[in-house]
Amino acid sequence: MTGKFPDTVINRLTLYHCILIDYIKKNLDTITSSTIAGLLKIDDSQVRKDISLLKNTGKSRVGYDVLELKNSIEKTLGFERPKNAFIIGAGNLGMALANYNNFEDYGLNVVALFDNDKNKIGKKIKDKEIFNIEDLPKLADKLNIEMAILTVPMDAAQNTVDFLVKSNIKYIWNFSPKVLLVPNDVEVWNENLMGNFLQFSYKIGK
Amino acid sequence: MTGKFPDTVINRLTLYHCILIDYIKKNLDTITSSTIAGLLKIDDSQVRKDISLLKNTGKSRVGYDVLELKNSIEKTLGFERPKNAFIIGAGNLGMALANYNNFEDYGLNVVALFDNDKNKIGKKIKDKEIFNIEDLPKLADKLNIEMAILTVPMDAAQNTVDFLVKSNIKYIWNFSPKVLLVPNDVEVWNENLMGNFLQFSYKIGK
Repeated sequence: MTGKFPDTVINRLTLYHCILIDYIKKNLDTITSSTIAGLLKIDDSQVRKDISLLKNTGKSRVGYDVLELKNSIEKTLGFERPKNAFIIGAGNLGMALANYNNFEDYGLNVVALFDNDKNKIGKKIKDKEIFNIEDLPKLADKLNIEMAILTVPMDAAQNTVDFLVKSNIKYIWNFSPKVLLVPNDVEVWNENLMGNFLQFSYKIGK
Repeated sequence: MTGKFPDTVINRLTLYHCILIDYIKKNLDTITSSTIAGLLKIDDSQVRKDISLLKNTGKSRVGYDVLELKNSIEKTLGFERPKNAFIIGAGNLGMALANYNNFEDYGLNVVALFDNDKNKIGKKIKDKEIFNIEDLPKLADKLNIEMAILTVPMDAAQNTVDFLVKSNIKYIWNFSPKVLLVPNDVEVWNENLMGNFLQFSYKIGK
């Protein structure tokens, strides 16, 4: 499935998924494309086009079956093989992400946090322990970790990444506002909050 | 300038800006498009094309002047008129965003936080006070607030947004994994972390 859907479609499908989870909570069985479109303020035709890319969407004359459409999105986007991740940096952002109640539904399995602050090491966020960053290499190997979520302060980001790379982590989800230098076999996804803000800021105008 | 650049260009320009800030810290005067391209693992031609959209980039035979290029990005993207914002929800994510050291550089001025937890009300994050959510309407008006950054738990999100809408907030940056129902004159920007993760997750494969 890799690369089949453009990023914009994936993004919309996860928003549809949010809406469907809401409908399930409210015990609603069916939903129409125009309802989804209305909630997201996008075109009905866009929603229908996106959903037409999926299989087994439970479409009938009265709309889509909420459960079937939800399952279809999950199957199509590959939530089914969970990825194990470490959070690097147990500050507010690391804590927030460790507490984020939706990652597991989407196949992201945060296994543990790491920090170099002795006051934090040994504590737990939910059921996730905060370990000493020095223990990362052996734990990454043992726990089959594929991804590091980087939430350390900007000034510590590059050194931390160098350490992650040495520890054989190949995928880094970077929340630091810093462009990181990595070898070619390592992928970085920059969670560019300023960029996101500026896109929104445009709507408010100068 | 509204709507002039596509989101993808804005996103890349903010990443170039990150790199330039780094260069300024290291007292480096010039940078080439191929250096920027190498750091971001994108095409040199893409970088040159993006920069060609800007004015006064300080281009010379040895590369771009770091300071001029940085200023040009800031002017073009309109960082110059700061927008005042409240953070709604003083949990880990709200705290993390209040502490985020880069928003101010990009024209986002977080003025205060709001919560309904009496243990939090009255405390400060940096110089930003946490107020009782009930005081929001009068403070929004008094402090000329244009945007609310929503970091409340998913189950509280819609009720909170209804309250923000009543308080005449027109722009909502939503960090809750929940699609919000708002009137037509209110804009919501969904910070869709699951969507972002899934885009990245594709690279790791099934």
